[in-house]
Amino acid sequence: MDPQDAHTWEPIGVVRSAYGSRREAPKQGPEAGGQAVIELREQWAPALKGLEPGRYLWVLTYFHQADRPRQEVHPRGDPSRPLTGLFNSRAPSRPNPIGLTLVKLAAIAGNKLTVRGLEALDGTPVLDLKPYVPGIDEPRD
Amino acid sequence: MDPQDAHTWEPIGVVRSAYGSRREAPKQGPEAGGQAVIELREQWAPALKGLEPGRYLWVLTYFHQADRPRQEVHPRGDPSRPLTGLFNSRAPSRPNPIGLTLVKLAAIAGNKLTVRGLEALDGTPVLDLKPYVPGIDEPRD
Repeated sequence: MDPQDAHTWEPIGVVRSAYGSRREAPKQGPEAGGQAVIELREQWAPALKGLEPGRYLWVLTYFHQADRPRQEVHPRGDPSRPLTGLFNSRAPSRPNPIGLTLVKLAAIAGNKLTVRGLEALDGTPVLDLKPYVPGIDEPRD
Repeated sequence: MDPQDAHTWEPIGVVRSAYGSRREAPKQGPEAGGQAVIELREQWAPALKGLEPGRYLWVLTYFHQADRPRQEVHPRGDPSRPLTGLFNSRAPSRPNPIGLTLVKLAAIAGNKLTVRGLEALDGTPVLDLKPYVPGIDEPRD
């Protein structure tokens, strides 16, 4: 594959949350407090085998309402903070607008996962779920 | 946007590493030990502003040599370990084959980042870079 090529991907599911617009959504997960539901496509329900409440998961989402990518951004969208490089920020306006959020699995039933700590807008496409793995997902010197 | 739609993405750069084939590559970052270089497209160099050696970054890659997705996998590809759900594993054979690796930035020069802890094959497309943020990227109860 030529890494210069453009490629396609498709969602494995969608987020159901209380946030209907960007203005309502918190900037990052910890402030969300509430719960969201990840509704996977039925076909992927078997791929959830082994996941249990209490586990931590990475949720990869598509920022479907993100602005066009910029080279520099104000941290947390706050104009009073000096501009920094896009890749030194978690802003949604990225060349590949993929969101990365660590959530705690509260409940699981069939193809639906109830999670805590997900800031995504209602209707946000989900690209992937990965288990949090201590050691590899932590800084180490 | 209809979350059922397929979407496109394109690499922001490529990994230069000593691993030319899947057999040579370790299963996860911490075993890699060595260094790899992330070579961003020139156009994205300004988006690195503010990143300095010593910082930890998430590198999102495209598993360009992954097999077709499966519902269940043997952890770490070890047939002696019982099958578990794909989303309970970090296996590359995913519907959207996005890799997530935490690396330490060792050096940065123009559009090239030397990083520690990246297991990716030489030529692996890079989709995104995000700063590690303590608090939001750690489990919390």
